[in-house]
Amino acid sequence: MSLYIREAEKKDIPVILALIKELAHFEKLSNEVFATEELLAHNLFEHQYAKILIAEYNNVPVGQALYFFNFSTFLSKPGIYLEDIYIKPDYRGKGIGKALLKKIIEIAKEKKCGRVEWSVLKWNKSAIDFYLSLGAKPLEDWSIFRLKQEHF
Amino acid sequence: MSLYIREAEKKDIPVILALIKELAHFEKLSNEVFATEELLAHNLFEHQYAKILIAEYNNVPVGQALYFFNFSTFLSKPGIYLEDIYIKPDYRGKGIGKALLKKIIEIAKEKKCGRVEWSVLKWNKSAIDFYLSLGAKPLEDWSIFRLKQEHF
Repeated sequence: MSLYIREAEKKDIPVILALIKELAHFEKLSNEVFATEELLAHNLFEHQYAKILIAEYNNVPVGQALYFFNFSTFLSKPGIYLEDIYIKPDYRGKGIGKALLKKIIEIAKEKKCGRVEWSVLKWNKSAIDFYLSLGAKPLEDWSIFRLKQEHF
Repeated sequence: MSLYIREAEKKDIPVILALIKELAHFEKLSNEVFATEELLAHNLFEHQYAKILIAEYNNVPVGQALYFFNFSTFLSKPGIYLEDIYIKPDYRGKGIGKALLKKIIEIAKEKKCGRVEWSVLKWNKSAIDFYLSLGAKPLEDWSIFRLKQEHF
């Protein structure tokens, strides 16, 4: 049994897209997925708007984490925003999610980041309990607003 | 009376820092500011973790907006995250904040972004009313978690 975390390459695009669709299904948000292989190639590899870590278990990709750098004005330092983390259901409970998060935190240290942030669906209690156990705290005082493209 | 929005340059660092401190005071979060001119120079100009737009009114800098690109896996497109927007109190009510936001939305269109996002303090009702009037929506189902550097 071997677990290996590596940076995604262009050849991983079909796997990346399949994992995005599985995640959307888990989050009950499949109707919001408009990702395509072409868009992923353009926005992750030609432009580098975000980075992906792939988790391989016995040489098979079974999960991924997508992140990008954000910025805190008050700290004047970059941070990491973990946009998505997903492990295939059959491979949960093996510490793979934890290994991905550990790698993200290592990158944050290496880049002298001031913080690591992410969002969680309020009903996902098992995830919330795990995040609290790491020392992470919910930002109770803030609301996120979103302006969709149709309102630009 | 003239309003001009431009990209920040390295020479603007003292102004940028002063505006960050004013914003923190307004948000009642002055104790959380650790920004310095050196950190801003390193993280905004040597590395480009974020970008700043400066609003000049009659040739005087009176406000700024700091943003960076984020990424939506479901859309597979970049987005803009507006980290901070601040206008000096004497210059409010002149449409300067609106002009900064309009410029951000123009950049989002130019870069084919799928959305523009930002956070607002839940008690800042006048800001919330303004955002709702633009067609923006709060993301009610999500909590943001933050892991601070001391927990890395």
